[in-house]
Formats: sequence, C-alpha cells, structure tokens
Amino acid sequence: MPERIYNFSPGPSVLPYSVLQQAARDIVNFNNKGIGLIELSHRSKEFMGVAQEAEALIRENLKVPSNYKVLFLQGGASSQFFMVPMNLLQNGMKATYLNTGTWSDKAIKEARLFGEIDVPFSSKEEKFNRVPKDDEYTVGPDSEYLYFVSNNTIYGTQFQSFPTADALLVSDMSSDIFSRSVDVSRFGIIFAGAQKNMGPAGVTVVIIREDLLDRAPENLPTMLRYKTHADKDSMFNTPPCFSIYCVGLVMKWLKELGGVEAIEKINNEKAALVYEAIDSTDFYRGHAEIASRSKMNISFNLPTPELEAKFIADAGAQGLDGLKGHRSIGGCRASIYNAFPREGVDRLVAFMQEFARANG
Amino acid sequence: MPERIYNFSPGPSVLPYSVLQQAARDIVNFNNKGIGLIELSHRSKEFMGVAQEAEALIRENLKVPSNYKVLFLQGGASSQFFMVPMNLLQNGMKATYLNTGTWSDKAIKEARLFGEIDVPFSSKEEKFNRVPKDDEYTVGPDSEYLYFVSNNTIYGTQFQSFPTADALLVSDMSSDIFSRSVDVSRFGIIFAGAQKNMGPAGVTVVIIREDLLDRAPENLPTMLRYKTHADKDSMFNTPPCFSIYCVGLVMKWLKELGGVEAIEKINNEKAALVYEAIDSTDFYRGHAEIASRSKMNISFNLPTPELEAKFIADAGAQGLDGLKGHRSIGGCRASIYNAFPREGVDRLVAFMQEFARANG
Repeated sequence: MPERIYNFSPGPSVLPYSVLQQAARDIVNFNNKGIGLIELSHRSKEFMGVAQEAEALIRENLKVPSNYKVLFLQGGASSQFFMVPMNLLQNGMKATYLNTGTWSDKAIKEARLFGEIDVPFSSKEEKFNRVPKDDEYTVGPDSEYLYFVSNNTIYGTQFQSFPTADALLVSDMSSDIFSRSVDVSRFGIIFAGAQKNMGPAGVTVVIIREDLLDRAPENLPTMLRYKTHADKDSMFNTPPCFSIYCVGLVMKWLKELGGVEAIEKINNEKAALVYEAIDSTDFYRGHAEIASRSKMNISFNLPTPELEAKFIADAGAQGLDGLKGHRSIGGCRASIYNAFPREGVDRLVAFMQEFARANG
Repeated sequence: MPERIYNFSPGPSVLPYSVLQQAARDIVNFNNKGIGLIELSHRSKEFMGVAQEAEALIRENLKVPSNYKVLFLQGGASSQFFMVPMNLLQNGMKATYLNTGTWSDKAIKEARLFGEIDVPFSSKEEKFNRVPKDDEYTVGPDSEYLYFVSNNTIYGTQFQSFPTADALLVSDMSSDIFSRSVDVSRFGIIFAGAQKNMGPAGVTVVIIREDLLDRAPENLPTMLRYKTHADKDSMFNTPPCFSIYCVGLVMKWLKELGGVEAIEKINNEKAALVYEAIDSTDFYRGHAEIASRSKMNISFNLPTPELEAKFIADAGAQGLDGLKGHRSIGGCRASIYNAFPREGVDRLVAFMQEFARANG
C-alpha cells in the first residue's frame, strides 16, 4: 500500500482502500472474464448482477421497506432539487421547506418553479449555524411534503433527530446517508449524491415510496419521471455503471463492518474527538451551535484568517489534506465520512493541540 | 495482459487496454499523490487539471471552433432528447427531425412536448434500414433546427455525409463521434453519450455554439439550462469525475494514434472487411441498404433465427462476444468502435466464413 494522505475533502471524498483496490482489478479484468468492468454492456448478465447486488445491499444496510423503490439516477442531488417538486407538485400545490444551508436554499429556488413553497424556518441570517427544533416551525395541512437537508455539508450542522411533523418527509441526505440509522418508512423520498458516503461522483441514489411514482403530471419529459426509472429498475437508458458498481462495493464494505449501527458508533466517537479538541481551548471556535453539530462535517474557526491559512497549509504539509472551509463561511472544515479512518482523526486532534500550543 | 475477449458490445463497449491499465493505477493512487482519483475533490487543482485536459483534447481531436462550448453533462443522450428542445424552442416554435431509428423516434416524442415537430422523412416502415438522401426531405424556413442521428446503433445505418440543408444542425452522434472528421462549424449542437467511442457510461459530451446558450426560456430549472453548465465549465455541481477522466485518457490515446483522420481510415478498413464477408456469400444478409451502411455497427441476418442463435453462441465460445442483435430487429450485430482491434475483425471474418461453410 502506497503512503496514503488523510483526505478531509467534503466530497468527492475518501473511500475505503479495499474498495479502490477491488475497483482497480475489475476495471482491467472483471471477475477474470477477459473484459473490463467499464466495458460491460449494461444489459449483460454480469452488469445486471452488479446493479442488483448494489441495490440489495442498499436495501439491507438501510432497512428499506419493500414498498420503496431504490433508483440509481444521474445529475447529482442538484437535479433532485427540481425533480422532487416537478414530480410531486401540480398547479398551485404547496410544500414546506426548512432552510438550513446552501443546498436547501437552492432547492427552494427550484421548487418555486413548480409550486407554492412555504419556508417557516431559516437560519440564513445566522450563517446557517443551526437547524430548527421541532417547535420552531409548523407545516400547513395543505402542504404536500416537508423538505429538509439532514446534514449541511458546508456549515457543519445536522438534524440530530428527524422532524416529527405530521407530513410526508422528503430529505436530501447527500452528506450523511448510511452514517446513522434511519426509519425509512417515515419518508416519502430520500435522495443522496454518492460522492460522500457511498462511492464516487456520478450517481444519485433515490429511495422513493411506490405510491408517489404516480403523482407526476402528464407532460413531463420521460427521463424526468421517477416512474420511468422505477419501472425499468434504473435501466431505462444506460446507467452510470462504474459509479453503481462502486456503490455496491462500499455497501459490501459497510455490511462487513457491521452495518449502519456499527458505523454510527464509530462516527459518534470520531466526531466527539474533534469537538473535544475544539472545545478544550479558546483557540478554536465551532461554527455550529452545539445542539446542531454535524458528525460528518466539522466547521470551525481560528482566531484570525491568517492563522486559519497557516493551519490549513501546515496540516497539508503533514498529509492532513482538504481542511479548508467552504468559501461561503471560510475557516476550516474537517469532513470525516464513514470511510475516513479513526487514525486520521487522532492525527488531526494531535495536530490541532500542537498548533494551538505553538500559535495560541 | 490477461486473455481478452473480443467485445462487440454496442455500448458500453470495448476501450483501449492501455486506458484501463492507466485508470486502474490512478484509481488507487493518482499521480503518486497518495489519494485515489475517485477520491479527489472536483474543485482540487488535480481534478480541475484532469477535466481541462479532457476538454482540450476533445477540442483538438474534433477541431472544435472557439465559439463552441464543450460540456460534460449527465443523464445520457436520452436527457438531451428533452434538453435540446427545452432550450431551443419556445411557444409554438418549430423544428425538423429525421426519423432514422429508435433514438430519433424517442427524441421526436420528447421534442413534441416543447414545440411543433415536423418529420419529413421516416424509414420506420422499412425497419429503419436506411437514412435519407438530401433530396428526400425539405426543412421549412420557420424550422429552428434540423435534428438527426448521425449513426443508428441498432439498425446499423449511418449518414455517409451530413445534411446540406440550410438549417441549424443538431445531431446525436452518440455512436460515431470521433470515428470520422466532422466540420463542427456546421452544427448548433452535437451531443454524444461517452460509452461508445469516448469512455465509460456516465457522462454526455455536449458541443454547443455559444450564441445558443441564451435561447432558453426563463422558467427552466437551473440544471436543465445549457448556460448554467457553460458558465461554470461543467462544474456547477459535482460532475461525473471518473467518466470525464476516462474520456481524457481515450482522447489522448486517439491523439497519439494520429487523431480522427487516422482512426477514420482504420474504421473504413475494418468495416469493409466485415461487409465483404457479408456480401461474398448468400448466407449473410446485411440489414442496412448499402448506401446507408454504418462503419460502427454492422447488423446482419442469417437464413434462420435458429442459425443466428447458433452463430452467436458458437462465436461467444470462441471469445467473440456481444454479437446478438438488438431485440427490435433480431439477428446479429457487430459493433466495431474506434477501440475495437483490427485482429478482432479478422477473427470475426474468419469465423463467419467457417460458419457459413459448415452451416450453409
């Protein structure tokens, strides 16, 4: 194994090394069949097997009920921002969105092209430093669904528990899917780009309750209806084969590790270590309110922008890579997704302590 | 090198072996940086370099004029079926489509959601066995564009020269892009899914004349406007990084081989060998009319469906894989894209002669 850097990138992000090694073998010669994985027809029994296994493992790891479809789509979570309202809303229908970050903000903008959108909570004025408590908003009875982003990658906030409102839940879980247990049966649609906890960029997983497939208006383009893809097991047209294959490998890795329950425990421990390093000195300052802290993305500041730049550069020189915060809030951010190793967290914490001593 | 089968799959399809080997190395450890290619942030200077090089090589190989944008999109060519009319047509505008196969047929269906579509030529009644000559159709002066599929993968037909009509040309070149010279300046939009001549599935290359970027109506979702992606060099959201990377490798392979002019000559030779094998006996019967024959996909029949099944099975047993024709016309099909090796064509021709002797 060549020396690996510790990759704190918010996505595309670190993947299990065993997954990379397996992918490297299969790309050249899939299962010793004399053909590369990415050369396989998507209609071949070999690739159909790959896609079916990936779906089965998603279902198993997330305990997806049988009345939900699991779809492999393209276009990123950004395409779901319009596909959700396009499929669920018609003339004058309403939906409720919680505005907790850049991605919900963008989703709201797209949704307004299709329906009347109510936004009863926004933390925009506070630089999205928190998510709402259940009693901070209400969902009107005429709202078709309640939309929220379960984890806000940029700001490092996360819903610790899911909204209890009596509404159909739709959630963008791009940056924390498979990091913790979810009762899927409470949701209408869950979607997530793969490039954080599931695999490489290029595929979006959509988990949709079957009865919602028939909600779409008549005049939608074929490719933009969820039903088109559900009816053909995501093979209506050529799917992003390599990304689906990798998702399958990551799901297998997760299952062998003990599944979502096991990784949730590890994630809790990893995040606690970093937050402890932040809270144990006045040198570091977490961006998120404590009750909203994300276990996937930890955004924090140092006393000055100059120190932040030095922190990022010095860390990088030690193989702790990708700690620069998003341009919209600056500062630093450690993204520690499922595949980010515990040793890397220990290394970061040691570096933080040392840096604070030397520069505090 | 492990023993390789000869892969006649219509797509995803065979790729240069050197590309697979390079991809296998980079997936685990990109440029010896201690990070895998598919773990790189799309905003990292490493990946930005990869994407820029891929674009530059596309421009170089296809001689794309500077007033055209090259976009890396998702959703397959099937998503272009609606994006083209959605971006180019508004209330009651017209466009002209030539119906030469399954994919143009589907494109027409989607286009009718957005405008008035004229179809002055269709070979549907003849099982799409030919493409039109220039004098077989006219394009009305009020038509915004003339749409055609340059090569029909399923039926094995191909425009030998492009329409000369005085109209803005829009072409789906999914199955023959980079197989022959194209004067891009005659086109408004050229698009192609990568998984035949460019790389793995998961990315669609769109080449669009810049002045067309401003044609889109106001109310389109952000992700469905070409301009969104053009303005951000295909990095508006996370792009399909791995597929773009592979396209870059294939483009480099093509350039080193001598570019489009060199591969065109090779393609002509390869196709001539197979057609000669078809025409030299009464045992085989080409599906396409001679003047419409494709150099990428060669569809042919044997005297009976039983013999066709035996042909496909016997060929497969000899490592000549993927020769089954599309279910819509049955029979056999040899897809011999850019990366399909000449030796494989020789092997197929020898097999065809032997099979005809033994079963004729």
